[in-house]
Formats: sequence, structure tokens, C-alpha cells
Amino acid sequence: MNFLQERIEQDGTVLSGHILKVNSFLNHAVDPQLMAAIGKAFADQFKDQHPTKVLTIESGGIAPALMTAFELGVPLIYCKKAKPSTMNDPISTEVFSFTKQKTYTMCMERPSMTSEDRILFIDDFLANGQAFKGIEDLISQTGATLVGCGFCIEKAFQSGRSYILAKGYPLYSLAPIAKLEAGKITWLEE
Amino acid sequence: MNFLQERIEQDGTVLSGHILKVNSFLNHAVDPQLMAAIGKAFADQFKDQHPTKVLTIESGGIAPALMTAFELGVPLIYCKKAKPSTMNDPISTEVFSFTKQKTYTMCMERPSMTSEDRILFIDDFLANGQAFKGIEDLISQTGATLVGCGFCIEKAFQSGRSYILAKGYPLYSLAPIAKLEAGKITWLEE
Repeated sequence: MNFLQERIEQDGTVLSGHILKVNSFLNHAVDPQLMAAIGKAFADQFKDQHPTKVLTIESGGIAPALMTAFELGVPLIYCKKAKPSTMNDPISTEVFSFTKQKTYTMCMERPSMTSEDRILFIDDFLANGQAFKGIEDLISQTGATLVGCGFCIEKAFQSGRSYILAKGYPLYSLAPIAKLEAGKITWLEE
Repeated sequence: MNFLQERIEQDGTVLSGHILKVNSFLNHAVDPQLMAAIGKAFADQFKDQHPTKVLTIESGGIAPALMTAFELGVPLIYCKKAKPSTMNDPISTEVFSFTKQKTYTMCMERPSMTSEDRILFIDDFLANGQAFKGIEDLISQTGATLVGCGFCIEKAFQSGRSYILAKGYPLYSLAPIAKLEAGKITWLEE
């Protein structure tokens, strides 16, 4: 087990319906030193892909992605889940959230990314990959290249993992979960 | 002018209706090194208040607040603008957003803050103080103490500033704006 898996076992809670609650240290209350360690781990894993920007989605992805971008010395961009009134020339795509059971518009400003960019996508969770497909669509609209995908926690028993691997994108999850049931986490052995 | 004011003059855009657009480096695309400098400035300003937690609101406040919490070595909490399905025992308050012209429910989980806590509130913008009043209400529901308020950018010509000062909370804005018109920023002299 690595540092994040240990922290999840210590402070996370498994709820019914395959839900892992980590909002006491990851995505509501946040441990900044843990985020710095996560950022360093992602930067180490992906630095040889030479990313020029880190991309994430508000709000859960911002903390780990900011620390990754800080370590790599590149800008962070976070996609919005609704179009802000001050956003000119937006690129957008529709994403269905299984968690919230509704569709939202994921968007970013076109000038924030060019066809020269090498994008590292970082997020707090990977599950069925719906948000990832939105990211893939936004990146394709800019002509940039997706060079890696890093997730803090991955529900490897859902379909996001196989989708990303089938497309050939480098994938790295710090805490990949093989099974989540009866209050117990079984980690994926890699 | 400090480093943030210089960056705003260099890369910000003044739109009509007193709107300052900073989403190429602050709240959409984000410069992580700038955020680290902001975090250090807030930590230096408020460390003598001995904050035990940094509090902010998703999404614009997360990056500067995370870096402030990292510098201070304390946890960050970010309030949500809607109640997540996994949030137990929420504390909530209603906030009217002038920017979006609608009311939203700001909430946090009760166990994330206790009456022993000394709270430093950090946000990207202060304007009319509606979000701040929501924060003040949430903190009062926990019995914690608000020991300081730090804003990256402050529209000092709107009513948030006088509200906070009248309540006696320590206030520090890195880029306080006295006037915003005809594409030009006039900084508040303090």
C-alpha cells in the first residue's frame, strides 16, 4: 500500500452503493501536505511525457491537479461545469453524471489550450469515465495531445479504466480499487 | 504595486459592468507559482492569528486557499455550492449571487469544524460580500472563530469591504481596486 491507500483505509468510509467517502481529507476538507505528496507522485510518473499543461475539472480535481502542475512547473486549467458569464469563445461538451443523475455542460475557454499543448489530465476519481470522455472531446476540439491520465482514486471495477486503456492513453491511479463492498476496500494488484 | 497587481495589469481584462476578467491565470487557467506566492503572502499576513483551518468556497477560492493552508500547515475546507449526496450532517445557508443572479445553498459538513477552530477565510474575489455573509453564518453555526479574511482581488468600491471592517474582522486584500472603468484599474491606496 502507498501513502494514499493507507490514508483512505485510515480516514475513508465505504457507504452502500459502492460509494467511497473521502471528504475528510480529499475533496471537502483537504490535507494540503497529502495533496503535495499526490502532486509529486503524479509529476514523477508523467514528467517523461513532457506535459505542457495540467487539466482537471472543478471542484474535486483542483487540489491534486494544482499540486501536480506546481511540481511540473506548468499551468493548470480547470474545466467548469457551467459556462461562466465572463467566458468568451468557450469550447463545450455535454457530460452525464451518474452520481448526480443529470447532464451538465463542461466547458473551457478556447485560448487556454492550443494544438501544440501536451495535456496531463488529473482528477480525484475515475469511475465510469463519463467526465473523462468529456475531457477527451474538449481536448480533441483544440487539437492538443493527451499524454497521460492520473487519478487519485480509481474504481477499477467500473468501465472508465478499460475505456482509457483501450484508447492507449497512459493511465496511473494512486489508489485503484478492485472491489468495494460491505464496508471493505480490496485494492487492485498491478 | 505588488506581484499580483502587476500580473493583473499585465494579463487581466476590464470588461463593461465593473467586471475584471482574470481567468487566464487565476480562476480558470491558473499559474501555480503565482498561487504559491499568494499562499505565502496570506500565510505571512495571518500567521500571528494562529489559524487552525483555512476555509474557502468552490471553485475559484480553492487554488489560493490550498496554497495558504499548505504554507500554514493546517487543513483546508472548501464549502460546496450544492449539497453533495455523500454529505452527512450538513450545515447550510442561502446565498444570493449577484454575478449569477440566483440563490444557491452553501454548505459544509458539520464535523469538519469545531468550536475550538480559528478560521482563516480565503477567496479569489470580494465584491458585495454576499458569499462572505454566508461564510460568517456557517462559521457561527459551528461556534468557531473567524480570525481573518484574505482576498486575492477586492472591489473596494462595493459593499463587502465596509461590512467586514464594521464587524472588526482582520481584512487583507492583495489587489484592492478603488475604481474599475473604461478598461482601467485604479488601485486603492492604503
